[in-house]
Amino acid sequence: MADINSKLEIGVTTGPIRGSSKVHVGPLKVAMREIRLEPTSGEPPVRVYDTSGPYTDSAVTIDIAAGLAELRRDWIRGRGDVEEVLQRDVKPEDNGQLGPDRSGGVPAFPRVRKTVLRGLPGANVSQMHYARRGIITPEMEYVATRENLGREMIANHVRDGQDWGAAIPDFVTPEFVRDEVARGRAIIPSNINHPESEPMAIGRNFLVKINANIGNSAVASNVANEVDKMVWSIRWGADTVMDLSTGRNIHDTREWILRNSPVPIGTVPIYQALEKVGGVAEDLTWEIFRDTLIEQAEQGVDYFTIHAGVRLAYIPLAAKRVTGIVSRGGSIMAKWCLSHHKESFLYERFDEITEIMKAYDVAYSLGDGLRPGSIADANDEAQFAELYTLGELTKRAWAQDVQVMIEGPGHVPMHKIKENMDKQLAVCGEAPFYTLGPLVTDIAPGYDHITSGIGAAMIGWFGTAMLCYVTPKEHLGLPDRDDVKVGVVTYKLAAHAADLAKGHPAAKVRDDALSRARFDFRWRDQFNLSLDPDTAEQYHDQTLPAEGAKTAHFCSMCGPKFCSMQISQEVREFAAKQNADADSFIAAEDAEKGMEAMSEVFKEKGGELYLPAE
Amino acid sequence: MADINSKLEIGVTTGPIRGSSKVHVGPLKVAMREIRLEPTSGEPPVRVYDTSGPYTDSAVTIDIAAGLAELRRDWIRGRGDVEEVLQRDVKPEDNGQLGPDRSGGVPAFPRVRKTVLRGLPGANVSQMHYARRGIITPEMEYVATRENLGREMIANHVRDGQDWGAAIPDFVTPEFVRDEVARGRAIIPSNINHPESEPMAIGRNFLVKINANIGNSAVASNVANEVDKMVWSIRWGADTVMDLSTGRNIHDTREWILRNSPVPIGTVPIYQALEKVGGVAEDLTWEIFRDTLIEQAEQGVDYFTIHAGVRLAYIPLAAKRVTGIVSRGGSIMAKWCLSHHKESFLYERFDEITEIMKAYDVAYSLGDGLRPGSIADANDEAQFAELYTLGELTKRAWAQDVQVMIEGPGHVPMHKIKENMDKQLAVCGEAPFYTLGPLVTDIAPGYDHITSGIGAAMIGWFGTAMLCYVTPKEHLGLPDRDDVKVGVVTYKLAAHAADLAKGHPAAKVRDDALSRARFDFRWRDQFNLSLDPDTAEQYHDQTLPAEGAKTAHFCSMCGPKFCSMQISQEVREFAAKQNADADSFIAAEDAEKGMEAMSEVFKEKGGELYLPAE
Repeated sequence: MADINSKLEIGVTTGPIRGSSKVHVGPLKVAMREIRLEPTSGEPPVRVYDTSGPYTDSAVTIDIAAGLAELRRDWIRGRGDVEEVLQRDVKPEDNGQLGPDRSGGVPAFPRVRKTVLRGLPGANVSQMHYARRGIITPEMEYVATRENLGREMIANHVRDGQDWGAAIPDFVTPEFVRDEVARGRAIIPSNINHPESEPMAIGRNFLVKINANIGNSAVASNVANEVDKMVWSIRWGADTVMDLSTGRNIHDTREWILRNSPVPIGTVPIYQALEKVGGVAEDLTWEIFRDTLIEQAEQGVDYFTIHAGVRLAYIPLAAKRVTGIVSRGGSIMAKWCLSHHKESFLYERFDEITEIMKAYDVAYSLGDGLRPGSIADANDEAQFAELYTLGELTKRAWAQDVQVMIEGPGHVPMHKIKENMDKQLAVCGEAPFYTLGPLVTDIAPGYDHITSGIGAAMIGWFGTAMLCYVTPKEHLGLPDRDDVKVGVVTYKLAAHAADLAKGHPAAKVRDDALSRARFDFRWRDQFNLSLDPDTAEQYHDQTLPAEGAKTAHFCSMCGPKFCSMQISQEVREFAAKQNADADSFIAAEDAEKGMEAMSEVFKEKGGELYLPAE
Repeated sequence: MADINSKLEIGVTTGPIRGSSKVHVGPLKVAMREIRLEPTSGEPPVRVYDTSGPYTDSAVTIDIAAGLAELRRDWIRGRGDVEEVLQRDVKPEDNGQLGPDRSGGVPAFPRVRKTVLRGLPGANVSQMHYARRGIITPEMEYVATRENLGREMIANHVRDGQDWGAAIPDFVTPEFVRDEVARGRAIIPSNINHPESEPMAIGRNFLVKINANIGNSAVASNVANEVDKMVWSIRWGADTVMDLSTGRNIHDTREWILRNSPVPIGTVPIYQALEKVGGVAEDLTWEIFRDTLIEQAEQGVDYFTIHAGVRLAYIPLAAKRVTGIVSRGGSIMAKWCLSHHKESFLYERFDEITEIMKAYDVAYSLGDGLRPGSIADANDEAQFAELYTLGELTKRAWAQDVQVMIEGPGHVPMHKIKENMDKQLAVCGEAPFYTLGPLVTDIAPGYDHITSGIGAAMIGWFGTAMLCYVTPKEHLGLPDRDDVKVGVVTYKLAAHAADLAKGHPAAKVRDDALSRARFDFRWRDQFNLSLDPDTAEQYHDQTLPAEGAKTAHFCSMCGPKFCSMQISQEVREFAAKQNADADSFIAAEDAEKGMEAMSEVFKEKGGELYLPAE
């Protein structure tokens, strides 16, 4: 084990995020993160949604070569509808190596499974299937506890938000989760061969989720980096991770990632299929694609992007675009369709694909192969033609009780974003929408995490269930570790802004705790409550590095004399000391009289608002 | 001169932004930036709005100790309504030094003016006054040319946007500018003592503008840094700059900035007034404040933030807030009002302030001293009570033909942003709105350029005329040079996204040019057309540093085999070669037949979509 580790040099970041620790809640031991506040605050710790898995749990020893514990193992087997079968042999072409030479490759994961699970013949092991039969699975219970986070703290909460027709409950029950999954309004991606995953839901009546993309490309990256990026991205909040590897070692890279991932893993199987035919799209066949689906389903991939909406007839619609087809999967299928002049085999074989999905509970992420790649192409005929087909395919997947989400654009100016959401909800029967950004302008390469973060926050507010992150390197290069973090934090704040605007009952708990810490000059609490405590503290220390500045009642923007926060704190304290309850000071009309009296007292006390505690 | 320069070590960045050069358009020689494209593109250069002044003009020699040329000198004097008067003596307290000791200070600007301009007794020299008398000033003509940028390139443009009731013309005439200024819907900040400034308009029927804040604080920074930051911020697109210096050397710092600034400069005079009374808010008097206004008006400050809406009766409304009063100016006035139990002298003396404003054409930026400092406090009674007063003051300023804009929040969740804009438009008679962000969540210190960029893009779309930037250091420390750039570029992209969504006629020109460059793999054009060419290229080169990669028809995300852009380019080229005009390939129904024929041709040509040019 140690050998493999050192050979691969897979080092991942472990240990708690500063100021916080892992807690496990309820009979299912649902993992959450608890942020401790300074004793002076008189406030309880703040619990936040935690995607980071055992890596931030001080009580767990991490061994990348062994993989994570199988949290869901007994739940899956306990349902009695799976069989253990021999895993499909790994072929050299699975790793893009047509000869026996594995040089440049990576060692196979040491504890690779010899047998895998599959639904019994005729069985459907999808969460949707259970939900529709009225069964509440442990996965659904886990999700309910996880999503309820903080709601018990806000007993007399007045809902404040505009939810655009969503149906967000005050309290999430396991039955609510079941119902949402049964209706197709939420999915719980949970391949039976990925028992390491901690159940999570994607749906517009739950917290908005984010996805981080990682993966080798033909020109850069390696497996150690990718495992590290996966662990790093979930540390900062990625709810799912897509492994978009191309080039060599796709199979082995994915195995290392899956065995060490506590979050659902998604892939685009056509990438690997194309690799198996030497990169020549025309040589793709249904048989090769089908074999790839089984290979990946057996490994435990939780959702597949399938570009089955790129139909032959839609391809010419993209020819007049400014940026044509920008989806890799979409363009591969377009090339295949054009050169054979045949309807896409993904579309033709869709029901056969669904048969495979339900035997492992792989969820569909119906790909938007014709998404706009520029502001000029937003909301055009090609895009919406494909969306209608995705709506049709959603119904076909649901007919077999298979979970579905729908991928969305892309590049869309602000005034055209809502139309995307409204059309998707109408056409796809409220299946969860999963969008990339959208980017609201094309003119800021290097800042596309921001151009897309704007669109992501907006479409998340309008009802998108999961936001696929964009890093600063988008359009320019492959993201490194720092880019991954910036992308994740940007999308986390966008998703949270969407939750706030939708009026998710407990979303505001963290904002309020941080704002109180800010107002009280509890600098450490302010850092620890933020999405990225390390960066917050580092920025603070660049101007005021002294340790004493972390307890000082001022900051570097104003300095000690001018601080407005301090002055208004003084105003409040003065009011409180005079037994004038701040809450009674509301009516402006009444205020003037009171103020006159207070002014006298104030002068008597020597004109200094900040009185020493008695 | 050289001595002063080296003593101060004021180094500023000069020279053109890469790939572009300065052009001067029309009889008034309106400065614009022209981005050259690769000859292979067959496209003309793209002209973009240019805030950078002479610093990016290769033909100009910059001498910081001499200041910029006085572009507007003859226009101002030519109107025959100003007199030259001796400048008010600079007192030690103007620089926060009550004794004669200037140690720790900075040398006075070498070419400081002995005489300054003032409107003749009884004269009103404001652009609004001229506009209301039907006079089109050169400033208005300059603005018209500047705002029209690119509109001639889009002759048969179909307007695409949602402008929320704005009145954006297809073409901006000087008469349109005059009319907007006369109505109070736009301002042209243009103090007669700041003749170095290049005229620009702030109003919702013009391009959305951005402001960058700079300034010393009591604990950090120095004048050389601040001049450098000013030049740096306008290089990347700041339309105006606010000097928010506190502490010492306020007067001298401002002089260096003004004499070297081609963009309007704003200040918050109460900061300097407070410094003159040793930081004790209660000791402020109308006389000290009035003297400060004249001092700054004589120096050439173009707009003053005046927190005249913080009325005594509103202060208790802030006591029950989570974050009280977060505006520095607001809290200073709150402390003054409370301790004297008197109505704010800014409110009481408002018409006298207006008399000063009109003698120099200083515009009001009516400060939002009670803006919310947290999500919890957004859109509360205190905030809107102040806004109503700002509406009242707007009318009082307009009664004297003085230009006004209104400052806005702050921290506002997405679903409450539009209410801010709608109320402001209604209450303040469509006077330009000038907002800080708003930040759409409190939980991301270190990333507040992004949390606020989201709100800024949205409120800009809804009708805000100018967006005050927020840097990554907001709430944590003083921005350095890098932070200033990130803040400016973030706000530039937010403002541009707003222009796109509003349907500004020419906004899309740059997006489309960049997207075409992206699709054609013209990497250098893609970099040069971006808001930050240096960062874009640097990110690209981190993955593919070879010079050849800049002309390669692939990038590091997909590598040579998988590139979707290339594949769809092949699809298009294939279509074009078959004489099947891409534009005719629209109807999906007709497409199938055509595709069948094309598929045959394709196979005949050997199945390779990318045919060599014949």
